[in-house]
Amino acid sequence: MFYLIGLGLFDINDMSIKALNALKEVDVIYAEFFTSKLIGSTLEAIEDKIGSKIHILNRSEVEEDSPFILEAKNKDVALITGGDPLIATTHSDFLVQCARKGIDYRVIHGSSILSSAPAISGLQGYKFGKVTTIPFPDHNFFPKSPYMAIKENMDMELHTLVLLDIQAHKDRYMSINQGLEYLMKVKDTLPEEEQVINEDTLAVGIARVGSDEGIVKAGKISELIDYDFGSPLHCIVIPSKLHIVEAEYLVYVAGADKSILEKC
Amino acid sequence: MFYLIGLGLFDINDMSIKALNALKEVDVIYAEFFTSKLIGSTLEAIEDKIGSKIHILNRSEVEEDSPFILEAKNKDVALITGGDPLIATTHSDFLVQCARKGIDYRVIHGSSILSSAPAISGLQGYKFGKVTTIPFPDHNFFPKSPYMAIKENMDMELHTLVLLDIQAHKDRYMSINQGLEYLMKVKDTLPEEEQVINEDTLAVGIARVGSDEGIVKAGKISELIDYDFGSPLHCIVIPSKLHIVEAEYLVYVAGADKSILEKC
Repeated sequence: MFYLIGLGLFDINDMSIKALNALKEVDVIYAEFFTSKLIGSTLEAIEDKIGSKIHILNRSEVEEDSPFILEAKNKDVALITGGDPLIATTHSDFLVQCARKGIDYRVIHGSSILSSAPAISGLQGYKFGKVTTIPFPDHNFFPKSPYMAIKENMDMELHTLVLLDIQAHKDRYMSINQGLEYLMKVKDTLPEEEQVINEDTLAVGIARVGSDEGIVKAGKISELIDYDFGSPLHCIVIPSKLHIVEAEYLVYVAGADKSILEKC
Repeated sequence: MFYLIGLGLFDINDMSIKALNALKEVDVIYAEFFTSKLIGSTLEAIEDKIGSKIHILNRSEVEEDSPFILEAKNKDVALITGGDPLIATTHSDFLVQCARKGIDYRVIHGSSILSSAPAISGLQGYKFGKVTTIPFPDHNFFPKSPYMAIKENMDMELHTLVLLDIQAHKDRYMSINQGLEYLMKVKDTLPEEEQVINEDTLAVGIARVGSDEGIVKAGKISELIDYDFGSPLHCIVIPSKLHIVEAEYLVYVAGADKSILEKC
């Protein structure tokens, strides 16, 4: 049997009882920490909790050949990942491989930034449009697509969840500050009529969802761009038109200026 | 302290270790099972696991006055709900009340249909547009909005997660079959050029995410509309344009006809 298991948002105690029970039973455990990372716990802490050794997969084992899948023919093999599994394409391909090779599989879900960040932003889930991710820029690589995704959503009065790049193998995680700087840089390249967000736009910075020391802070981009949100993981929500209940949350829970209540 | 705790997708073992630990510590536990329901476990099973009594809130306690919030001034009070909390507007209002009354609060997240259903459909998360919900129709109440949400998403080549009505207080949960019938009825009222989906459209029926007996089945709406998906909860995904990796998943994992591979 092949178990694909999501460990949830932040630390070892975010995993479900179901996940813990399965991990205590299986014969061998692999971890895929390229596309996600359980930022609040060390590998040793996870191993202690589970009571067995975890084998970290390297990128080629994850993305090219997947020898651990064949191992699941005769053994119980678990692959763990941060958040909810199957969000990354590589995970869905594991199930395709299992199905084609006649290997039984089971998926154990975990809490995910894709639902928890919209939730903790206080904005209504059904008013979110498509999600976008800001990548670390490079010379010759500075896509405008994250800004354009926000624009498309705003044109339909939909909020946007903006994920920030994770390069876990380099221990490099984009901060809210870097993400907002990126968006403002894109803005400066656009004609004025396409600049749907600027320094005066309301945004929500969200750090370490799932942790007791999480931060949810709403304010103008000019205020958040220098704010110290602390350690990763970070993400951003760009609200579109607000309902009064959403605005009240942003004011009283997330510290936005009361003037936003008057605009609802 | 006020704890807002999501129990996760399906049964008691979907709750996180963090949730279980908190529930064993608090002084009093209330449950909000109007907007969601932990369908795979009885109330008694949850009480047994936690080791204390749970007080089920009625609708007016949840939506109008919330006396349990004030109780959290001097006690540790938990409010539990299925899935991830804060998805419902009523929950975000609890935190607003806490913030305004100077009551400390903590949110413990759970696995949610909003991330797990897109994940288990095998489609890529960043290609989903806004989510929609099909309500139980009534005389004079038959909104076309769910169909139009699918249309808007499809116009932008985005997939749609279609949630199905939950009337937990009446123990009434919409099935995939009822949902697809609803969409086909809306289609019949529309001019042909607006009929973006019909009986030949590919859909994915998803039942009991999080359960060992979950079903993920892809096929034409005409095939799924009579298929027996078993007990609730159900939801539907309507794919837009497919990437080859997505199509392979729908064929090999979800049983779609191989002809969809040729269209990628």
